[in-house]
Amino acid sequence: MRQTIGDFLLRRLEEVGVRHIFGIPGDYNLELLQQMEDRGRPQWIGNCNELNASYAADGYARINGLGALIVTDGVGALSVMNGIAGSYCEHVPVICICGSIPQQSLDRGWLMHHTMADGSQDRFYRAFAEVTAAQSKLTPGNAVVEIDRLIMTAWRCKLPVYLELPSDMGCIVVEVPEAPLFLTYPLSDQERLKTCCQRIVARLQHSSNPALLLDIDADRFGVLDQIATLADHLQLPVATLAGSKGNFCEQSPLFAGVYSGANSSPKLRKLIETSDCLVDIGFRRVDSTSGVFTDNIPTNAIHLHGQSVDIDDENFQSVYLGELLSNLIQQTPPNPRRSAPVLEPVIKSSPSALSQTLLSQKEFWQSMQHFIQAGDLLVAENGTSSAGAAGLHLPCRSTLITQSVWGSIGYSLGCLLGTLLAAPQRRQILFIGDGSFQLTAQELSTIVSHELKPYIFLINNGGYTIERALLGRSAKYNDIASWRYTELAKSFSRTQEIETFVVQTSQELHAVISSPHHGLVFVELVMDPNDAPLALIRAMHAIADIDYGLGGPQSVRGAQITEDDERYR
Amino acid sequence: MRQTIGDFLLRRLEEVGVRHIFGIPGDYNLELLQQMEDRGRPQWIGNCNELNASYAADGYARINGLGALIVTDGVGALSVMNGIAGSYCEHVPVICICGSIPQQSLDRGWLMHHTMADGSQDRFYRAFAEVTAAQSKLTPGNAVVEIDRLIMTAWRCKLPVYLELPSDMGCIVVEVPEAPLFLTYPLSDQERLKTCCQRIVARLQHSSNPALLLDIDADRFGVLDQIATLADHLQLPVATLAGSKGNFCEQSPLFAGVYSGANSSPKLRKLIETSDCLVDIGFRRVDSTSGVFTDNIPTNAIHLHGQSVDIDDENFQSVYLGELLSNLIQQTPPNPRRSAPVLEPVIKSSPSALSQTLLSQKEFWQSMQHFIQAGDLLVAENGTSSAGAAGLHLPCRSTLITQSVWGSIGYSLGCLLGTLLAAPQRRQILFIGDGSFQLTAQELSTIVSHELKPYIFLINNGGYTIERALLGRSAKYNDIASWRYTELAKSFSRTQEIETFVVQTSQELHAVISSPHHGLVFVELVMDPNDAPLALIRAMHAIADIDYGLGGPQSVRGAQITEDDERYR
Repeated sequence: MRQTIGDFLLRRLEEVGVRHIFGIPGDYNLELLQQMEDRGRPQWIGNCNELNASYAADGYARINGLGALIVTDGVGALSVMNGIAGSYCEHVPVICICGSIPQQSLDRGWLMHHTMADGSQDRFYRAFAEVTAAQSKLTPGNAVVEIDRLIMTAWRCKLPVYLELPSDMGCIVVEVPEAPLFLTYPLSDQERLKTCCQRIVARLQHSSNPALLLDIDADRFGVLDQIATLADHLQLPVATLAGSKGNFCEQSPLFAGVYSGANSSPKLRKLIETSDCLVDIGFRRVDSTSGVFTDNIPTNAIHLHGQSVDIDDENFQSVYLGELLSNLIQQTPPNPRRSAPVLEPVIKSSPSALSQTLLSQKEFWQSMQHFIQAGDLLVAENGTSSAGAAGLHLPCRSTLITQSVWGSIGYSLGCLLGTLLAAPQRRQILFIGDGSFQLTAQELSTIVSHELKPYIFLINNGGYTIERALLGRSAKYNDIASWRYTELAKSFSRTQEIETFVVQTSQELHAVISSPHHGLVFVELVMDPNDAPLALIRAMHAIADIDYGLGGPQSVRGAQITEDDERYR
Repeated sequence: MRQTIGDFLLRRLEEVGVRHIFGIPGDYNLELLQQMEDRGRPQWIGNCNELNASYAADGYARINGLGALIVTDGVGALSVMNGIAGSYCEHVPVICICGSIPQQSLDRGWLMHHTMADGSQDRFYRAFAEVTAAQSKLTPGNAVVEIDRLIMTAWRCKLPVYLELPSDMGCIVVEVPEAPLFLTYPLSDQERLKTCCQRIVARLQHSSNPALLLDIDADRFGVLDQIATLADHLQLPVATLAGSKGNFCEQSPLFAGVYSGANSSPKLRKLIETSDCLVDIGFRRVDSTSGVFTDNIPTNAIHLHGQSVDIDDENFQSVYLGELLSNLIQQTPPNPRRSAPVLEPVIKSSPSALSQTLLSQKEFWQSMQHFIQAGDLLVAENGTSSAGAAGLHLPCRSTLITQSVWGSIGYSLGCLLGTLLAAPQRRQILFIGDGSFQLTAQELSTIVSHELKPYIFLINNGGYTIERALLGRSAKYNDIASWRYTELAKSFSRTQEIETFVVQTSQELHAVISSPHHGLVFVELVMDPNDAPLALIRAMHAIADIDYGLGGPQSVRGAQITEDDERYR
C-alpha cells in the first residue's frame, strides 16, 4: 500500500502503543502536526517548552513502554538534549522526532534559519549521536526501514533514538507494508541461553543464601512479574536499589529493603554482601545509588542484563532477560519452604501528634506514609523530595518515579504530565522542591488545561536544600526568589479551578489531606531551609568529599547543613 | 604569583569586563560559586533554569562585549545547548563554564550521577564541539593557557566557547601571571592589508554609486563608529539587514533602509542591487534575512568579514575589520559633497484616532513609534513582535535586539535580563508574544528580584501566530493555554511591586503609555489570533513554500493566515 512518510510514521507510533505525542510546533514540523491533526491520532499534547516536553515523553514512556516527542530543527532539538540524555541514562525508550530543514535547502546549499548559517551540515545530528542509541534522517528511499529500525531499537534497548524528518519529506508518498509493527525481542541464542541457564540453576542449587538485587532495568525490560514469580518460586529475598524502589512489592515477606551500601541496615548489608549467590538485574555501580561507593557486591554475583549475562568469567551475549527468567522459573524446582519475612514487620507508626510549629521534613513524610494508598503513582523530584520518598514504605501496586542517576532538577513536573496521560485512572502524587519547581513551573499549565488532577506537594524552603547539604549552607547562590506559588498555580488557567493550600504546620497539613478533593490539589509546604532528610545530608556529605576532595571547602565548619540538629533526632 | 584555578578564572573574567555571571548551582560547580561569593566579584545572577541563563548571557554579551554562564555537568550543560548554539549562529561571544565531574572519578573509573553511567567519557564535551568555537577541560597543567585561549577565542571570533572545570580542580593552586588579560585583535598581515585596502579604495574611487550593507558582524566586531565615520567621510548610503537594524542611525540622511530582497522598497532594491561598488560587512544569505532568497546582491560586491575580505576572485586572510576600516578612512579622500537624504523624510504620522475596538497590530506599532525614544534598548521576540519592530523607524542611539537567524522563541525574555544588567541606565522595552513567553516565563522573576524596571509588552493572541501564517491558521496545535498573565507576573515576587495592565483597545494602550510609571511595567495586549504584520505574513508564505515544497499543505485554501483582511490595508 502507499502512504505518505508522515502518515506512516504516525501509524507506526500508534501501532506500538503511543497514544500521545508531546512537543512544540515549529515551521519545520508543522506539516507532520497537520498530518496528526488530520488523522486524529496519536493525540498532540502541546507543551510550554521543549525540555518540558522531553520530560513528559520520558514519564509517559516509563509507564506506557514507549514515548515520543516532536520538535523543530536546532532551536527545538537542542532544547531537549538534557531530557533525551536523561532518558539514555535512565534507560527510557523515547523517540525524538525532529522536523528538520527541507532537503532541498541542503541540496541547493541554501542557508536556513534555526541553523548555524555557515554552510556546515549535520552538526545537531552529530550532537544527538552522543545522547541517543540510534539516529536517522529520513528519505523516501530509507523511511520505511529506518522508522521501524528506530522504533525497534528504542524499545529493545530501552534507550532514546533521534529521527530527523526533513520538512519537505512528510508529504511524500512511498510504498509501505500493510502489516502492523509488533514489538518483540529477538530470540536468544538457544545454546548460550541453555548453558547460561544451567550455570545459574547450578549456582542457585548450591547456594545457602541466594538473593535478588534489582536495578532500573528490571522495570524497563518489563520483567517485574517474572521476578516476582521467580522470587516466590524459590523463596528468594529481593532488594532493590534506589532507582528501582517499588519494583518489588514492599509488602511482600520476601522484600528485603533498598540496598544502598553503608546506608543500608546491617541485616540488609549482610544479606547482600555475604550472599553466595547474588543475582542482580542491570546493576550499575553509581555514586548516587551505591551509598557513594560504600556498597560491597560479592565478586561472584551473577549479573543479568537486558540481552546478556555475566557469571564469573563467562559472558553470555544474546541471552534475553525475559526468556532467561522464564527458563529459570521452569528449570528450578520450587522451594516448598516459605521463608519467614525478611524484614521486621513495618508497624505503621501512628501519626505523630499534630503540631502548630513549622512543619518539619520528618513530620511531612510521616504524614505521607499514612496518606499514600495501594495503586498510587508517586513522582519525586531530586532533592529532599526523593530522599523523603525513599524512606516511605510503599503500599502494593504503587509506583515511585525518580531520576536516581541523571538527577535533573525540574524533571518531575514534566514527567508528571506524561505519567498522568499514560495512566489517567491512577491517583498520582508529586513531591517537588521550590528550586526544582522554578525550572519547569509553566508545565503545570498543561496539566491543568488537560483537566488532570494530581496532588502536588511543593516544598518551599527558599532554595536548593540539596546543594546546601553539599556546600553553601547559608550562601546566597543557593537561595532563590520567593514566589507566591499558589497564586502562580491559579494564574495558569482562566477556566479550570485548582485547589490551592499553603501549609505551615502538621495540623494544617492534616486538614488538607484528610478532606475530600475534586480538582487538582496544589499544596505549598513552608519548611526551614536547613531541614532535610538525614539520609540526604549524609549522602551529600559523602558526595562533596568526592566532588571537591577530602580537604575541600565543604570541610570548613558551617559550610554544609549538618545533622547536629534537633530536627533529625 | 600563585592562585587557585577557580580564582584565576574568575579574575580573568573580571579583567575582560564580565561583571555578572549567570547560571544555576549544581554540585559540580558549587566550589566555583563559593569562590565567586568569597571574592565578591563578578556578581552571581542565579537564574530559574539553564536555558534562560544562556539567553541572559547572550543578551549581556551583545551589550557588554562578552558574557559568561556557569552550569553543572550533563543536566545543566545540555540544557543550554540551544542557547549556546544560538550565540554561535548569531555571533555572540559567550563563555560557557561547566563544573564537570571530578577528575578523580574519571581516573578511577567511578560512575557518577549526571552522566550516562555506562563508562563512556566526554560525550557532552563532544556534543558541545558542534556548537562552540573552542573547548577545553582544565587541568593544573593547562589551566592558565587554556583559560586565556578560550576567552580570547570567544572575543576575537565572536563565538561561544565551552570550558569544563572538574569539580576537584577549582581549589588547586597554580602559578599564574600577574599581568591582566587585555582583549586585542591580532595585527593584520600588513602586506595583505595594504593590497586589500588599495583594491577597495580603487573600486570606491571608480564607483558611481557605492553603498554599504551591514549584517550582524558590523555590531559584533565593534566597528559601528568606524562605519559611521566612513559613511560620512565618503557620503555613502548605508543599508542594514534585519539582524543589524539600528546599527546605523536611522535618522541619518545616509540611512537607506533595511534591505530584504523583494520586500524592500524599489528605491532601496535599486540602490543595493545596481551598486557598482557594494561593500558589505559580514553578509550571510539566509532565508530569514534575504526576503527568502529574493535578494540580488551584485556579484562584484566586496565582502568584509571579521578577519578576512573577499574582492572578486581575491581572498585576503588576516585582514582585520577594524584595522581595515581605519585604513580605508585614512586612505580615501573625503567626499565634500553632502548627499541628499537617501530616504524620503519619515513623517511621523500622527497617532491614529484612539479606538475602542480590539487593538490591532497596526495600531499597536503605530503607538510604539510614538512611544520609543532616543537611547531606548528594544528587545523583540521572533514572531509578530520582531516583524512589528522591524517596521519601526528607530530614534538615535537606540538598539534593537532580535535573533534574526536563530529565531528561538522564548529567547527575548532571558535576553532582556542580560541587557538590563549590562546597561541598567537605559530604558528597555520588550515585545513578546504569549506563545514565546510561555517557554521562559519564569525568568521574569529574576528581572523582578533584581529590581530591574523594563517595559514588557506581551501580545496575547492565544498561540503561535507566526506559525499560523505558515500552516494551521485554525489548527489546534498552534493554540496555547490561556494564562492570567498579569496575575502570573505579580506572583513572581512577594516583595517587589510591578505595575500590570490588560489592554484591549488603542485607547487603553494610550492611557498606559502616556502615564508615568516607577516600577516594572507589564502590559498584556489582547489581540486577534489572526492579526499579524503584513511583512510577516508574506515572509512566512514564502518560507512555507521552501519548507513543504510549492504544492505542500500550505497551498490548501484557509491553511494559512492570509492578507485579504481589512486589518492589513
